[in-house]
Amino acid sequence: MVEPAIALFGGAYENASQVLEELLRESGARYALLLDRKGFVLAHKEALWAPRPPALDSLATLIAGNAAATQALAKMLGESRFNELLHQGATHGLYAEEVGELALLVVIFDNSAPVGRVKLFGKRAVQALEVITRDSVVQPGTLGIDHEYRDGASALLDELFGN
Amino acid sequence: MVEPAIALFGGAYENASQVLEELLRESGARYALLLDRKGFVLAHKEALWAPRPPALDSLATLIAGNAAATQALAKMLGESRFNELLHQGATHGLYAEEVGELALLVVIFDNSAPVGRVKLFGKRAVQALEVITRDSVVQPGTLGIDHEYRDGASALLDELFGN
Repeated sequence: MVEPAIALFGGAYENASQVLEELLRESGARYALLLDRKGFVLAHKEALWAPRPPALDSLATLIAGNAAATQALAKMLGESRFNELLHQGATHGLYAEEVGELALLVVIFDNSAPVGRVKLFGKRAVQALEVITRDSVVQPGTLGIDHEYRDGASALLDELFGN
Repeated sequence: MVEPAIALFGGAYENASQVLEELLRESGARYALLLDRKGFVLAHKEALWAPRPPALDSLATLIAGNAAATQALAKMLGESRFNELLHQGATHGLYAEEVGELALLVVIFDNSAPVGRVKLFGKRAVQALEVITRDSVVQPGTLGIDHEYRDGASALLDELFGN
């Protein structure tokens, strides 16, 4: 199973949410999400005036997939990856910037928020979020259940062969 | 087989190349490509000072795939598609804008060209390219070989059943 690479608990989650809320207030954007690069939503905020957002989990998966897909493009130009993506439609825009190596900040805005402001305050938020997420990286620890399973399986095999 | 939706011949190709060349000169970008949305390169230009570009056909296919992949994202936000994409790496940037419904203008630039200038002159180039490509759309004409094949097959069947 795919597990998130970052887990935000307690204070870290509160702090991240506060950074997103401030970003929305300052930039005039609609929604702000902090995503795991694998597509998990770590934290999200919506502006009070914004309409109901689309399904955030689906959106997160699409954005993470999209960011991964652009890596092939970046490599062709000699970059390890693009650290900034901007998609602009007729009335909506989507801005994504990487937060360290494992997370993405995504800001969704409409025509009422100038792109420049979204980028400026987005970059500021990224700096704060980098500090917050750095300490929340999930360490792939020793998996107790695997030991148990192995011991159980050995015992079973010993029994089967009469050892 | 996938066929390009647009074919630029003679004067149209010359005009498109000239627009791309002017765009490079005014924006300071490295490479400019006019792509079919299916991933075919219709015309391309490189700045004289730019290093050897990466394989343009591969690049075009990746960009067209990428632009198509973002349509799912755009639809989630209620847009039919994003008409502008900007990918920004540490030293390289890639800007794509749609030219009508069937083509894309792609500009690849490095740190020496400000993004704002690339976008400004990119938009101007798009207007010119829209006019040029509008008349070069390939009309899915009557396919002679299909008629021939159908008539041949009918004749064969008639013979088989002794009609």
